[in-house]
Amino acid sequence: MTDAAAPLSAHAAFLVGQLGFHTAYRFADLLAPLDIKPRHFGMLKLLGQHDGRTQQELGEALDIHRNVMVTLVDDLEARGLVERRRHPTDRRAHAVYLLPAAHALLARAEAVVESLDTELLAPLAAEERATFLDLLQRTAAGNGLRPGIHPGLTR
Amino acid sequence: MTDAAAPLSAHAAFLVGQLGFHTAYRFADLLAPLDIKPRHFGMLKLLGQHDGRTQQELGEALDIHRNVMVTLVDDLEARGLVERRRHPTDRRAHAVYLLPAAHALLARAEAVVESLDTELLAPLAAEERATFLDLLQRTAAGNGLRPGIHPGLTR
Repeated sequence: MTDAAAPLSAHAAFLVGQLGFHTAYRFADLLAPLDIKPRHFGMLKLLGQHDGRTQQELGEALDIHRNVMVTLVDDLEARGLVERRRHPTDRRAHAVYLLPAAHALLARAEAVVESLDTELLAPLAAEERATFLDLLQRTAAGNGLRPGIHPGLTR
Repeated sequence: MTDAAAPLSAHAAFLVGQLGFHTAYRFADLLAPLDIKPRHFGMLKLLGQHDGRTQQELGEALDIHRNVMVTLVDDLEARGLVERRRHPTDRRAHAVYLLPAAHALLARAEAVVESLDTELLAPLAAEERATFLDLLQRTAAGNGLRPGIHPGLTR
Protein backbone atom coordinates (compact mmCIF):
# COMPACT_ATOMS: atom_id res chain seq x y z
CA MET A 1 0.00 0.00 0.00
CA THR A 2 1.11 3.53 -0.66
CA ASP A 3 1.78 5.48 2.48
CA ALA A 4 0.17 8.79 1.59
CA ALA A 5 1.54 10.20 4.85
CA ALA A 6 5.16 10.04 3.58
CA PRO A 7 5.52 13.29 1.63
CA LEU A 8 8.40 13.71 -0.83
CA SER A 9 9.63 16.65 1.23
CA ALA A 10 10.60 14.17 3.97
CA HIS A 11 13.21 12.68 1.61
CA ALA A 12 16.68 14.23 1.36
CA ALA A 13 16.99 12.83 -2.18
CA PHE A 14 13.87 14.68 -3.30
CA LEU A 15 14.86 17.93 -1.56
CA VAL A 16 18.33 17.86 -3.08
CA GLY A 17 16.79 17.38 -6.53
CA GLN A 18 14.20 20.10 -5.97
CA LEU A 19 16.82 22.60 -4.76
CA GLY A 20 19.33 21.55 -7.42
CA PHE A 21 16.96 22.11 -10.32
CA HIS A 22 15.63 25.34 -8.80
CA THR A 23 19.19 26.63 -8.44
CA ALA A 24 20.12 25.54 -11.97
CA TYR A 25 17.14 27.43 -13.42
CA ARG A 26 17.98 30.50 -11.33
CA PHE A 27 21.61 30.32 -12.41
CA ALA A 28 20.59 30.09 -16.07
CA ASP A 29 18.33 33.15 -15.63
CA LEU A 30 21.04 35.17 -13.90
CA LEU A 31 23.66 34.20 -16.51
CA ALA A 32 21.43 35.07 -19.47
CA PRO A 33 22.60 38.74 -19.59
CA LEU A 34 26.17 37.41 -20.01
CA ASP A 35 25.02 35.35 -23.02
CA ILE A 36 26.29 32.04 -21.64
CA LYS A 37 24.61 29.00 -20.16
CA PRO A 38 25.62 27.27 -16.93
CA ARG A 39 27.49 24.55 -18.82
CA HIS A 40 29.63 27.16 -20.61
CA PHE A 41 30.54 28.63 -17.25
CA GLY A 42 31.35 25.18 -15.85
CA MET A 43 33.55 24.38 -18.82
CA LEU A 44 35.32 27.76 -18.70
CA LYS A 45 36.11 27.18 -15.02
CA LEU A 46 37.57 23.76 -15.81
CA LEU A 47 39.50 25.07 -18.82
CA GLY A 48 40.90 27.88 -16.66
CA GLN A 49 42.31 25.28 -14.29
CA HIS A 50 43.86 23.31 -17.17
CA ASP A 51 44.91 26.03 -19.59
CA GLY A 52 46.78 24.73 -22.62
CA ARG A 53 45.76 21.08 -22.28
CA THR A 54 44.43 19.25 -25.32
CA GLN A 55 40.75 18.46 -25.65
CA GLN A 56 41.51 14.77 -25.33
CA GLU A 57 43.54 15.25 -22.15
CA LEU A 58 40.78 17.41 -20.72
CA GLY A 59 38.06 14.96 -21.61
CA GLU A 60 39.94 12.07 -20.04
CA ALA A 61 41.00 13.99 -16.94
CA LEU A 62 37.50 15.30 -16.32
CA ASP A 63 35.54 12.27 -17.58
CA ILE A 64 33.64 14.47 -20.02
CA HIS A 65 32.42 12.83 -23.18
CA ARG A 66 34.33 13.85 -26.30
CA ASN A 67 31.17 15.09 -28.08
CA VAL A 68 30.14 17.27 -25.13
CA MET A 69 33.66 18.65 -24.91
CA VAL A 70 33.89 19.47 -28.62
CA THR A 71 30.45 21.10 -28.71
CA LEU A 72 31.17 23.28 -25.68
CA VAL A 73 34.62 24.31 -26.91
CA ASP A 74 33.06 25.13 -30.30
CA ASP A 75 30.50 27.35 -28.54
CA LEU A 76 33.18 29.06 -26.48
CA GLU A 77 35.39 29.58 -29.51
CA ALA A 78 32.50 31.12 -31.48
CA ARG A 79 31.95 33.54 -28.57
CA GLY A 80 35.61 34.60 -28.66
CA LEU A 81 36.27 33.15 -25.20
CA VAL A 82 38.78 30.40 -26.01
CA GLU A 83 41.03 29.47 -28.88
CA ARG A 84 42.39 26.18 -30.08
CA ARG A 85 46.05 26.17 -31.05
CA ARG A 86 48.05 23.38 -32.55
CA HIS A 87 49.80 21.43 -29.82
CA PRO A 88 53.57 22.17 -29.83
CA THR A 89 54.62 18.52 -29.96
CA ASP A 90 51.54 16.54 -31.05
CA ARG A 91 50.64 17.91 -34.49
CA ARG A 92 47.24 16.19 -34.59
CA ALA A 93 46.14 17.57 -31.22
CA HIS A 94 44.72 20.99 -30.36
CA ALA A 95 45.34 22.66 -27.04
CA VAL A 96 42.65 24.97 -25.65
CA TYR A 97 43.52 28.37 -24.22
CA LEU A 98 41.33 30.96 -22.51
CA LEU A 99 41.29 34.38 -24.20
CA PRO A 100 41.28 37.62 -22.18
CA ALA A 101 37.51 38.00 -22.70
CA ALA A 102 37.04 34.69 -20.86
CA HIS A 103 38.81 35.96 -17.76
CA ALA A 104 36.60 39.06 -17.69
CA LEU A 105 33.48 36.96 -18.21
CA LEU A 106 34.51 34.46 -15.54
CA ALA A 107 34.86 37.27 -13.01
CA ARG A 108 31.33 38.48 -13.81
CA ALA A 109 29.94 34.93 -13.67
CA GLU A 110 31.68 34.30 -10.33
CA ALA A 111 29.84 37.33 -8.95
CA VAL A 112 26.59 35.74 -10.14
CA VAL A 113 27.45 32.52 -8.27
CA GLU A 114 28.14 34.57 -5.16
CA SER A 115 24.78 36.32 -5.36
CA LEU A 116 23.04 33.00 -5.99
CA ASP A 117 24.71 31.57 -2.88
CA THR A 118 23.47 34.52 -0.87
CA GLU A 119 19.93 34.10 -2.19
CA LEU A 120 19.90 30.33 -1.66
CA LEU A 121 21.21 30.50 1.90
CA ALA A 122 19.16 33.51 3.01
CA PRO A 123 16.74 31.34 5.04
CA LEU A 124 19.61 30.05 7.23
CA ALA A 125 21.54 31.66 10.07
CA ALA A 126 25.27 32.26 9.55
CA GLU A 127 26.41 29.22 11.55
CA GLU A 128 23.82 27.04 9.82
CA ARG A 129 25.21 28.08 6.44
CA ALA A 130 28.65 26.80 7.41
CA THR A 131 27.13 23.52 8.63
CA PHE A 132 25.06 23.17 5.45
CA LEU A 133 28.13 23.77 3.25
CA ASP A 134 30.12 21.17 5.16
CA LEU A 135 27.32 18.59 4.91
CA LEU A 136 26.87 19.28 1.19
CA GLN A 137 30.61 18.92 0.53
CA ARG A 138 30.90 15.65 2.43
CA THR A 139 27.75 14.24 0.86
CA ALA A 140 29.04 15.14 -2.62
CA ALA A 141 32.47 13.64 -1.97
CA GLY A 142 30.99 10.51 -0.37
CA ASN A 143 28.80 9.96 -3.41
CA GLY A 144 31.80 10.04 -5.73
CA LEU A 145 31.21 13.52 -7.15
CA ARG A 146 34.43 15.19 -8.26
CA PRO A 147 34.97 18.76 -7.04
CA GLY A 148 33.81 21.34 -9.56
CA ILE A 149 32.51 18.84 -12.13
CA HIS A 150 28.77 19.03 -12.70
CA PRO A 151 27.10 15.70 -13.63
CA GLY A 152 25.38 17.52 -16.51
CA LEU A 153 28.79 17.63 -18.20
CA THR A 154 29.58 13.95 -17.77
CA ARG A 155 26.23 12.28 -18.47
CA MET B 1 40.53 39.23 -12.21
CA THR B 2 39.33 35.69 -11.79
CA ASP B 3 40.11 34.25 -8.40
CA ALA B 4 41.30 30.78 -9.40
CA ALA B 5 41.50 29.94 -5.69
CA ALA B 6 37.70 29.97 -5.31
CA PRO B 7 36.64 26.50 -6.41
CA LEU B 8 33.01 25.79 -7.31
CA SER B 9 32.87 23.25 -4.50
CA ALA B 10 33.07 26.14 -2.02
CA HIS B 11 29.67 27.35 -3.24
CA ALA B 12 26.47 25.91 -1.77
CA ALA B 13 24.64 26.77 -5.00
CA PHE B 14 27.05 24.66 -7.05
CA LEU B 15 26.99 21.74 -4.60
CA VAL B 16 23.21 21.71 -4.49
CA GLY B 17 23.13 21.62 -8.30
CA GLN B 18 25.79 18.92 -8.47
CA LEU B 19 24.02 16.72 -5.91
CA GLY B 20 20.59 17.46 -7.37
CA PHE B 21 21.53 16.37 -10.88
CA HIS B 22 23.48 13.36 -9.62
CA THR B 23 20.44 12.27 -7.58
CA ALA B 24 18.07 12.85 -10.50
CA TYR B 25 20.21 10.66 -12.78
CA ARG B 26 20.45 7.97 -10.10
CA PHE B 27 16.69 8.10 -9.54
CA ALA B 28 16.06 7.76 -13.29
CA ASP B 29 18.40 4.73 -13.40
CA LEU B 30 16.75 3.07 -10.41
CA LEU B 31 13.23 3.72 -11.76
CA ALA B 32 14.01 2.35 -15.22
CA PRO B 33 13.03 -1.25 -14.27
CA LEU B 34 9.58 0.12 -13.33
CA ASP B 35 9.28 1.67 -16.82
CA ILE B 36 8.60 5.18 -15.53
CA LYS B 37 10.63 8.35 -15.40
CA PRO B 38 11.04 10.58 -12.35
CA ARG B 39 8.45 13.05 -13.64
CA HIS B 40 5.86 10.27 -13.93
CA PHE B 41 6.50 9.35 -10.33
CA GLY B 42 6.25 13.00 -9.24
CA MET B 43 2.97 13.43 -11.08
CA LEU B 44 1.53 10.15 -9.71
CA LYS B 45 2.37 11.31 -6.18
CA LEU B 46 0.58 14.60 -6.78
CA LEU B 47 -2.40 12.92 -8.45
CA GLY B 48 -2.63 10.52 -5.50
CA GLN B 49 -3.00 13.49 -3.19
CA HIS B 50 -5.69 15.05 -5.38
CA ASP B 51 -7.57 12.03 -6.70
CA GLY B 52 -10.60 12.92 -8.79
CA ARG B 53 -9.68 16.54 -9.47
CA THR B 54 -9.84 17.86 -13.02
CA GLN B 55 -6.67 18.47 -15.00
CA GLN B 56 -7.36 22.19 -14.95
CA GLU B 57 -7.82 22.26 -11.16
CA LEU B 58 -4.64 20.24 -10.74
CA GLY B 59 -2.63 22.46 -13.06
CA GLU B 60 -3.78 25.60 -11.28
CA ALA B 61 -3.37 24.21 -7.79
CA LEU B 62 0.13 22.90 -8.53
CA ASP B 63 1.25 25.64 -10.94
CA ILE B 64 2.02 23.03 -13.59
CA HIS B 65 1.71 24.14 -17.19
CA ARG B 66 -1.31 22.73 -19.00
CA ASN B 67 0.83 21.13 -21.74
CA VAL B 68 3.10 19.40 -19.23
CA MET B 69 0.07 18.16 -17.32
CA VAL B 70 -1.71 16.81 -20.42
CA THR B 71 1.43 15.08 -21.71
CA LEU B 72 2.15 13.40 -18.39
CA VAL B 73 -1.45 12.31 -17.85
CA ASP B 74 -1.46 10.94 -21.42
CA ASP B 75 1.69 8.92 -20.62
CA LEU B 76 0.21 7.63 -17.38
CA GLU B 77 -3.07 6.72 -19.06
CA ALA B 78 -1.22 4.83 -21.82
CA ARG B 79 0.59 2.86 -19.10
CA GLY B 80 -2.73 1.92 -17.46
CA LEU B 81 -1.92 3.88 -14.31
CA VAL B 82 -4.62 6.55 -14.36
CA GLU B 83 -7.90 7.12 -16.10
CA ARG B 84 -9.76 10.25 -17.08
CA ARG B 85 -13.48 10.22 -16.38
CA ARG B 86 -16.04 12.82 -17.29
CA HIS B 87 -16.51 15.19 -14.38
CA PRO B 88 -19.88 14.59 -12.66
CA THR B 89 -21.03 18.21 -12.87
CA ASP B 90 -18.79 19.90 -15.46
CA ARG B 91 -19.42 18.00 -18.71
CA ARG B 92 -16.45 19.58 -20.52
CA ALA B 93 -13.96 18.66 -17.79
CA HIS B 94 -12.18 15.38 -17.12
CA ALA B 95 -11.27 14.24 -13.66
CA VAL B 96 -8.16 12.10 -13.21
CA TYR B 97 -8.22 8.96 -11.06
CA LEU B 98 -5.43 6.60 -10.09
CA LEU B 99 -5.98 2.98 -11.09
CA PRO B 100 -5.00 0.07 -8.81
CA ALA B 101 -1.80 -0.50 -10.82
CA ALA B 102 -0.70 3.03 -9.88
CA HIS B 103 -0.93 2.31 -6.16
CA ALA B 104 1.20 -0.82 -6.57
CA LEU B 105 3.72 1.08 -8.69
CA LEU B 106 3.84 3.99 -6.23
CA ALA B 107 4.68 1.60 -3.41
CA ARG B 108 7.58 0.18 -5.44
CA ALA B 109 8.79 3.65 -6.43
CA GLU B 110 8.61 4.82 -2.81
CA ALA B 111 10.95 1.98 -1.90
CA VAL B 112 13.34 3.27 -4.59
CA VAL B 113 13.24 6.75 -3.04
CA GLU B 114 14.01 5.21 0.34
CA SER B 115 17.02 3.34 -1.01
CA LEU B 116 18.22 6.47 -2.81
CA ASP B 117 17.98 8.40 0.47
CA THR B 118 20.06 5.75 2.18
CA GLU B 119 22.68 5.84 -0.57
CA LEU B 120 22.81 9.66 -0.68
CA LEU B 121 23.13 10.06 3.09
CA ALA B 122 25.55 7.18 3.65
CA PRO B 123 28.55 9.54 4.11
CA LEU B 124 26.85 11.25 7.10
CA ALA B 125 26.36 10.15 10.69
CA ALA B 126 22.78 9.61 11.89
CA GLU B 127 22.49 12.93 13.72
CA GLU B 128 24.02 14.76 10.75
CA ARG B 129 21.36 13.27 8.47
CA ALA B 130 18.64 14.80 10.61
CA THR B 131 20.41 18.16 10.56
CA PHE B 132 20.92 17.97 6.79
CA LEU B 133 17.23 17.14 6.22
CA ASP B 134 16.15 20.08 8.38
CA LEU B 135 18.50 22.49 6.58
CA LEU B 136 17.35 21.23 3.17
CA GLN B 137 13.68 21.61 4.12
CA ARG B 138 14.11 25.14 5.44
CA THR B 139 16.25 26.20 2.49
CA ALA B 140 13.63 24.83 0.08
CA ALA B 141 10.75 26.53 1.89
CA GLY B 142 12.66 29.80 2.22
CA ASN B 143 13.33 29.81 -1.52
CA GLY B 144 9.63 29.49 -2.28
CA LEU B 145 9.67 25.82 -3.30
CA ARG B 146 6.35 24.11 -2.67
CA PRO B 147 6.51 20.78 -0.82
CA GLY B 148 6.56 17.81 -3.17
CA ILE B 149 6.56 19.86 -6.39
CA HIS B 150 9.71 19.47 -8.46
CA PRO B 151 10.72 22.54 -10.50
CA GLY B 152 11.11 20.27 -13.53
CA LEU B 153 7.30 20.02 -13.56
CA THR B 154 6.66 23.75 -13.38
CA ARG B 155 9.33 25.19 -15.70
